[in-house]
Amino acid sequence: MRRGIATVSLSGVLADKLDAIAAAGFDGVEVFDNDLVASPLSPSEVAARCADLGLSIDLFQPVRDVEGVPPERFDAVLHRFRAKLAVMADLGATTVLCCSNVGADTVDDPDLSAAQLHALGELAAEQGVTIAYEALAWGRHVSRVGQAWDVVRRADHPAVTLAVDTFHLLSRGDDGSALAGVPGDRIGFLQVADAPLLDMDVLEWSRHFRCFPGEGTLDVVGVVAATLATGYHGPVSLEVFSDVVREADPAVTARDAMRSLVFLEEQLGATALPPAPDAVDPAFLEVPGSPAVPPLLTALGFAPAGQHRSKPVTWWRNGEAHVVVNDGAATDPALGVVAAPVSGVAERAKALLWPAVDRTRGSGEALLPGITSPSGLHVFVSDRPGGADDWRGDFEATDGAGHGDLLGIDHVVVAVPDLRLNEEVSFLRTLLALDAGAAEEFMEPHGRLRSRAFRPALGSLRMVVNVEESERAAGSGITQVALASPDVRATVRALRAAGVPLMPVPANYYVDLDARFALPPDLLADLREHGLLYDRAGDGELLHAFTAPLAPGFHVEVLERRGGYDGYGSAGTHVRLAAQRR
Amino acid sequence: MRRGIATVSLSGVLADKLDAIAAAGFDGVEVFDNDLVASPLSPSEVAARCADLGLSIDLFQPVRDVEGVPPERFDAVLHRFRAKLAVMADLGATTVLCCSNVGADTVDDPDLSAAQLHALGELAAEQGVTIAYEALAWGRHVSRVGQAWDVVRRADHPAVTLAVDTFHLLSRGDDGSALAGVPGDRIGFLQVADAPLLDMDVLEWSRHFRCFPGEGTLDVVGVVAATLATGYHGPVSLEVFSDVVREADPAVTARDAMRSLVFLEEQLGATALPPAPDAVDPAFLEVPGSPAVPPLLTALGFAPAGQHRSKPVTWWRNGEAHVVVNDGAATDPALGVVAAPVSGVAERAKALLWPAVDRTRGSGEALLPGITSPSGLHVFVSDRPGGADDWRGDFEATDGAGHGDLLGIDHVVVAVPDLRLNEEVSFLRTLLALDAGAAEEFMEPHGRLRSRAFRPALGSLRMVVNVEESERAAGSGITQVALASPDVRATVRALRAAGVPLMPVPANYYVDLDARFALPPDLLADLREHGLLYDRAGDGELLHAFTAPLAPGFHVEVLERRGGYDGYGSAGTHVRLAAQRR
Repeated sequence: MRRGIATVSLSGVLADKLDAIAAAGFDGVEVFDNDLVASPLSPSEVAARCADLGLSIDLFQPVRDVEGVPPERFDAVLHRFRAKLAVMADLGATTVLCCSNVGADTVDDPDLSAAQLHALGELAAEQGVTIAYEALAWGRHVSRVGQAWDVVRRADHPAVTLAVDTFHLLSRGDDGSALAGVPGDRIGFLQVADAPLLDMDVLEWSRHFRCFPGEGTLDVVGVVAATLATGYHGPVSLEVFSDVVREADPAVTARDAMRSLVFLEEQLGATALPPAPDAVDPAFLEVPGSPAVPPLLTALGFAPAGQHRSKPVTWWRNGEAHVVVNDGAATDPALGVVAAPVSGVAERAKALLWPAVDRTRGSGEALLPGITSPSGLHVFVSDRPGGADDWRGDFEATDGAGHGDLLGIDHVVVAVPDLRLNEEVSFLRTLLALDAGAAEEFMEPHGRLRSRAFRPALGSLRMVVNVEESERAAGSGITQVALASPDVRATVRALRAAGVPLMPVPANYYVDLDARFALPPDLLADLREHGLLYDRAGDGELLHAFTAPLAPGFHVEVLERRGGYDGYGSAGTHVRLAAQRR
Repeated sequence: MRRGIATVSLSGVLADKLDAIAAAGFDGVEVFDNDLVASPLSPSEVAARCADLGLSIDLFQPVRDVEGVPPERFDAVLHRFRAKLAVMADLGATTVLCCSNVGADTVDDPDLSAAQLHALGELAAEQGVTIAYEALAWGRHVSRVGQAWDVVRRADHPAVTLAVDTFHLLSRGDDGSALAGVPGDRIGFLQVADAPLLDMDVLEWSRHFRCFPGEGTLDVVGVVAATLATGYHGPVSLEVFSDVVREADPAVTARDAMRSLVFLEEQLGATALPPAPDAVDPAFLEVPGSPAVPPLLTALGFAPAGQHRSKPVTWWRNGEAHVVVNDGAATDPALGVVAAPVSGVAERAKALLWPAVDRTRGSGEALLPGITSPSGLHVFVSDRPGGADDWRGDFEATDGAGHGDLLGIDHVVVAVPDLRLNEEVSFLRTLLALDAGAAEEFMEPHGRLRSRAFRPALGSLRMVVNVEESERAAGSGITQVALASPDVRATVRALRAAGVPLMPVPANYYVDLDARFALPPDLLADLREHGLLYDRAGDGELLHAFTAPLAPGFHVEVLERRGGYDGYGSAGTHVRLAAQRR
């Protein structure tokens, strides 16, 4: 697959965009006309620059509103098209994207559109240029790929072909089957973009919320596969604009873009990457050491269970919940996961350009590769318990090993800056093969919280990624770890006895809870007595409590899932946020 | 008019919201149930707090999904409603908002809804409570005010009344005429919100983009007038939630909210404010003095025209363009406008709670009141030329008075932080009676620029308010002043001769310009030679050029309008932004 990207997909000015695109290893670019118009580089200088960088110019785009034009105004279109062909000659570009007319006075007549495209095709063919005609999802009369293909067929000119754009096609509710019967040599170009499912005007959706394949929810793979199945063998080129990429560093965007294409190729079976892990489970939470940590862990019911053989790292344990305290280099909290085969995951990370954490490894110690997520989270990958690269093998077990009865780490919550959310989603999906749940939104006392939960197809890891849109946001990193208890009331009593400060739950909450669920009085009294939040879904129940912040922006949740409850208690989130912000 | 506001309209926790609402002078509040549930204050403590603050609790809201409920589940609704009535008894609230059911399983049967509301009305009446039933714009089956009124009529119970919400009503395309025939004593509550016109899902629109009356584009005045015309005499209560108010200081929001109600009352003829000015014209730009300023003004063709009688302030002039250089207290650039009567505008500012700029006034000097906009812009108000309070009267004219031939200040551009945009719009509309143009959006190399132009009904003032969504944004304040020239080519030659650095225009721009407009070769050559940008609309033409930044984030535009051109050259904005960011 020939890998391309449009310059409109990156922030900055044209020269910087080309540098970033080349550095990320793309084969070619689409030159966005506005980028060129605003650039001090002449078209031939841009051509030379691309040649130096090893980039082909695969497309010049877009030339707008060229068909369906009232006949008396078509001369102006010919003038404009000729001028752009002259620019393309200097650029050395041989394909031009023409998108369907959006003008209010567009004529609704496929034969007129076809005749006009035919005339433009004649001009284009004179200098060896091919037109790729695209149905903009908000085109006045041509807004679906089938309509564009109909016009192309009627135009009946070798230099007039169809452009396929996954966003435009999917956003109008079509899928790959819309390309059935289109010969591959009649498709002139393939543009690729994904997007989260949003219920809004499609033009606004397109402008502000596109993302790279794998970061949204559209079936991009299906449309690309259908396009390739026609016999199309031109570039697969990313055209993504959004509020995020417009502010991001172009080098970061270009790398993220390249990764999305590699992942897309894997999904298409066009590239073999080291495989993603079959199952992912939580292994441990790593926290930086400080004098406050041992008493706090003790109060939470943890006890030292082992000492690292070569590093100042202590393993603490409460039942099946594990925390390692790192008294070495100061770090932020990090996450250990069980994801075998360990070496395969490490190689997969490398193939996908996810950066490794630089840690020394003692001889004979477990391979415990660390990978840094876009938001800066360090994820360490361990073998299954008892495997050759089980993280526990690096520890000398101590006498106090293991007491308490926690069931394990239920989930961790990671705060991510808004501009890094798409990349973080990409990290969790491409490296660990986690599936994203629906986006939820909560009102904070001083802003908003957007939240998405992630889980693997197999294994018990649960991660929640939050974007806090508030000036008082805690920043990024792990903001919460939730510990699963077989009896959360007993856990709360033990925490209270140990003096761990818990988040107060307002009395009004229980009045509302009873209004909503008509709870048995015993249960309600129990919840109130233990300061527990509660949720119910079907036969499942969640009982949970939160500590007060134990460090700025960090707290612990203890929870008990009953009857297969599968959520996170989001109905009580506004109460928690208000209590925590008070 | 009884002035109210919902606690959901402010950020923070309930206690802080009540303080802010009382401080802004409201008569009453709507208590938002979620705010109460998350509060450590009991309902009776909230009631006591409101009594202390002089606030009545006019509404408890909302109780959701109480009608159209499958009959076998109505017992749970009765349980929930009774529990909320008990809360209301402790609050001392006697009106409850019930909004139309949004559940997927809502039964589409107005008689069932009516019977269920009748049953709830019976319960409510027992404790003297009235239900106000609202059609949520995204209600499952009841989404328009006419449908809600139909259900209320069928319910036929004195304790079941209609709630009118300007946003829900207008967002579905209804207007005040939808209330024709509804008796005033059957309307239980009036909620008021505005919004900018946006083409998106109405629920998302409502959640994120509501604003206070006068800040958006909905005909709020019409619906409120129609409601009052029915004989309704209950509270007029603001219910506004948005991404902006969620992050704003509640005290600031409460003041902005109160101002919007005062302005609304004026528009309804319910309050007489000191009148807005008939006409608004630009008077002068004030800039802080620095050694760089005099040579720069000289290079721009300005010359000293006068010296202030009592302050270290110099008046510079080029034709009809005036700049005053303030060597006193360091300030940001400020704007002088002609808006008579001066004392009336000052009193209007006071009545609308717009803060005055604190400046000393010498005896016998012009009344030149300064008012500070929400973004921090200082606007000074002067009398008409030759009037008693003409700002020029405070200056001793000097010999060098006036040379050059500029026609005046064409417009000023003010950058405003995103969170302050609505308030800034309110400032320009309520104080100076400026009308807002459509919102435009431009892509910057490193973000986005949202822009709105403002003009008075009479007078030549033009202001452009920009929100820069980019980490590299210049901040707030005046970022540009545009000077009108009768011959911009001559002006550009003079600037070049004086060594003023001009923004370079890429050669590609002229190629594109010719493609778009097929310009006469002479004109194109002229534009290129003088480095001018160009736009055309109908018979009108704009020729303009920009200086390089003269201070961080500040530049000067010189422009020539021909043939009644009325815009700002937005087709070239992306070129300017790229050049300025390079």
